[in-house]
Amino acid sequence: MGEPQPMPKNRLEAFSDGVIAILITIMVLELKVPHGADWHALQPLLPVLVAYVLSFLYIAIYWNNHHHMLHAAHRVNGPILWANNHLLFWLSLVPFVTSWMGENHNEAFPTAAYGFVLIMAAVSYTILQSTILATLGKDSELARAVGRDWKGKTSIACYLAALGLAFVSPWLSYVLYLTVAVMWFIPDRRIEKHVHHA
Amino acid sequence: MGEPQPMPKNRLEAFSDGVIAILITIMVLELKVPHGADWHALQPLLPVLVAYVLSFLYIAIYWNNHHHMLHAAHRVNGPILWANNHLLFWLSLVPFVTSWMGENHNEAFPTAAYGFVLIMAAVSYTILQSTILATLGKDSELARAVGRDWKGKTSIACYLAALGLAFVSPWLSYVLYLTVAVMWFIPDRRIEKHVHHA
Amino acid sequence: MGEPQPMPKNRLEAFSDGVIAILITIMVLELKVPHGADWHALQPLLPVLVAYVLSFLYIAIYWNNHHHMLHAAHRVNGPILWANNHLLFWLSLVPFVTSWMGENHNEAFPTAAYGFVLIMAAVSYTILQSTILATLGKDSELARAVGRDWKGKTSIACYLAALGLAFVSPWLSYVLYLTVAVMWFIPDRRIEKHVHHA
Amino acid sequence: MGEPQPMPKNRLEAFSDGVIAILITIMVLELKVPHGADWHALQPLLPVLVAYVLSFLYIAIYWNNHHHMLHAAHRVNGPILWANNHLLFWLSLVPFVTSWMGENHNEAFPTAAYGFVLIMAAVSYTILQSTILATLGKDSELARAVGRDWKGKTSIACYLAALGLAFVSPWLSYVLYLTVAVMWFIPDRRIEKHVHHA
Repeated sequence: MGEPQPMPKNRLEAFSDGVIAILITIMVLELKVPHGADWHALQPLLPVLVAYVLSFLYIAIYWNNHHHMLHAAHRVNGPILWANNHLLFWLSLVPFVTSWMGENHNEAFPTAAYGFVLIMAAVSYTILQSTILATLGKDSELARAVGRDWKGKTSIACYLAALGLAFVSPWLSYVLYLTVAVMWFIPDRRIEKHVHHA
Repeated sequence: MGEPQPMPKNRLEAFSDGVIAILITIMVLELKVPHGADWHALQPLLPVLVAYVLSFLYIAIYWNNHHHMLHAAHRVNGPILWANNHLLFWLSLVPFVTSWMGENHNEAFPTAAYGFVLIMAAVSYTILQSTILATLGKDSELARAVGRDWKGKTSIACYLAALGLAFVSPWLSYVLYLTVAVMWFIPDRRIEKHVHHA
Repeated sequence: MGEPQPMPKNRLEAFSDGVIAILITIMVLELKVPHGADWHALQPLLPVLVAYVLSFLYIAIYWNNHHHMLHAAHRVNGPILWANNHLLFWLSLVPFVTSWMGENHNEAFPTAAYGFVLIMAAVSYTILQSTILATLGKDSELARAVGRDWKGKTSIACYLAALGLAFVSPWLSYVLYLTVAVMWFIPDRRIEKHVHHA
Repeated sequence: MGEPQPMPKNRLEAFSDGVIAILITIMVLELKVPHGADWHALQPLLPVLVAYVLSFLYIAIYWNNHHHMLHAAHRVNGPILWANNHLLFWLSLVPFVTSWMGENHNEAFPTAAYGFVLIMAAVSYTILQSTILATLGKDSELARAVGRDWKGKTSIACYLAALGLAFVSPWLSYVLYLTVAVMWFIPDRRIEKHVHHA
């Protein structure tokens, strides 16, 4: 069907919105309804709930950034479509590692697995970013806004550290996961000056 | 990626529509298919079904109001995006507390938990409303339509009362939850005069 | 937030598309993966699969007709929004009665429950149709296309008959459910002449 | 409601996007969270994960090709709507056969069932393609891009071979399933020259 020619981006956005909306929502299905009806019945759910909040934040950040990046893109081609599918694939594993980590808190391996999926999602986001930048040129607003992408590189370094530290103490990993999320959550004033979509 | 600059609102609407459509639909997955094939097999499901109807009504009301509020907004910025994600987070917990309340009817704690999630959803809706109003100004049609927001304030007061009364009799809470839903369901003629989107 | 004023219909369509797309898809989650790996492991699933095909057809017909009806509408108001939510509510119960009927084939009560949900969906569709027609007037193309709505009325009569006959023999009901689906599936040449959207 | 008249294609795209986005995402729900917290707990999941990756790739390819084909279509009519629903039906069975094959790797029957669903999806895609081509004419860009559709025909031949070979060795089928996916994944330069959507 001729995958690689340029085409409008609205359906790519709609499909990504659909997948991300489903991912952020189906995680809540892992909050299994407790059998009891008192406060104690809810307690074993607390780590699962905390993991859910963390992943909700991460997926919301990805949607946010995806939203902005696609907004800056002009058209999409085959490589962009597949780089996007690649990102969606790794994001689709977030509900799985969230549940695994939430149901086994303070355990090394699930905590490291969570970090692994975050690393792959960040790498695939970077690939998508480069693929879009390649169609826009070095002087595009997006290129200037991304710059050397220290934020993306710092995130991947933190995830790598968290993956390793999970085998020392999972709590160190949790602190790193939260730190990166907060770093993305707080707007970046420097970038704001560069990108002004009309 | 420069979160805070203004941008078109269509993708925010599409993402919210997706999440709300999924939330309103996955609740039905909690209606577990009974093993028997007669009328008695259906009876234990009745409280779950009633809780489902109530939450369907609430989420439909939220979608309705969200629809109108975003329609009145001109553009969205970073704070609006995050206020919206915050609202979607609390709405995403509605299926969980619906199932818990439905499977434990006439129990204090699940009934209070339902009220707690409704309070947080109402508070986050109010925050989203204020964030949008801050971009529109005091003389905007939305500002006049919202006015002192007695309806939003009354709702939160009723939820708070329902949360407390759940420990006296959950049935009082159910009556309050239904009353607030009906209050939002019945159109507000005074507001209708103020907002006339062309 | 002033529910009843007129507004564009695109978000209503998007929300309905989302809910209907989820409904038609989550039914497949009821096709529980069999434990065995041979042909015999699949056999108990056959009635569930047949019920799934029937409901897939019904929901696809509803989406089809909803698509055409909204296409003929100009704008939506509060009553149309709520008539639409009412329809989505009854459609949302289709996966539940599909599973119940599929897992208990040749049983009277689940077969009748399936008919009950089809009746309520048909009635709510008729209400939505009347609400939209009230905004368009008697001379609209939609009004002429619908005419006396013999197809809608025949459907409801068949569902009522199927509901009653389920207590005589569920197979009579299955034949009626299939007949109505086929009746809607085969295009109506008379109507085709009336509605020509540019 | 007069199914067969021409109408804009955006809602068909939106509905298909919704269904495909849900299908590609709910497969991940079959990755059941393991009870243990170490590497060994993850091992039994590996075949399920591999099957998930394969099906993610297939559904992404279908979305990609569907995207391009609908982009080339001008308007949709009743037959196109139903050919599309037919395709969505067969795609909706992909999560089911994926789980069955993943949980019973190296078993003949589930591997053949996977091939059967791929055949029916490919056949229904070909029907949709023909239905759209019938509205565009032999000289359309889409007609020239599709040509004799050797890629579609080769795929169906490979699926048929894989279905049969599953009873000799499922591994031969897995190799064929992967080969076809890779064949579609690699862009087709010849086609690229033909279709240039402005």
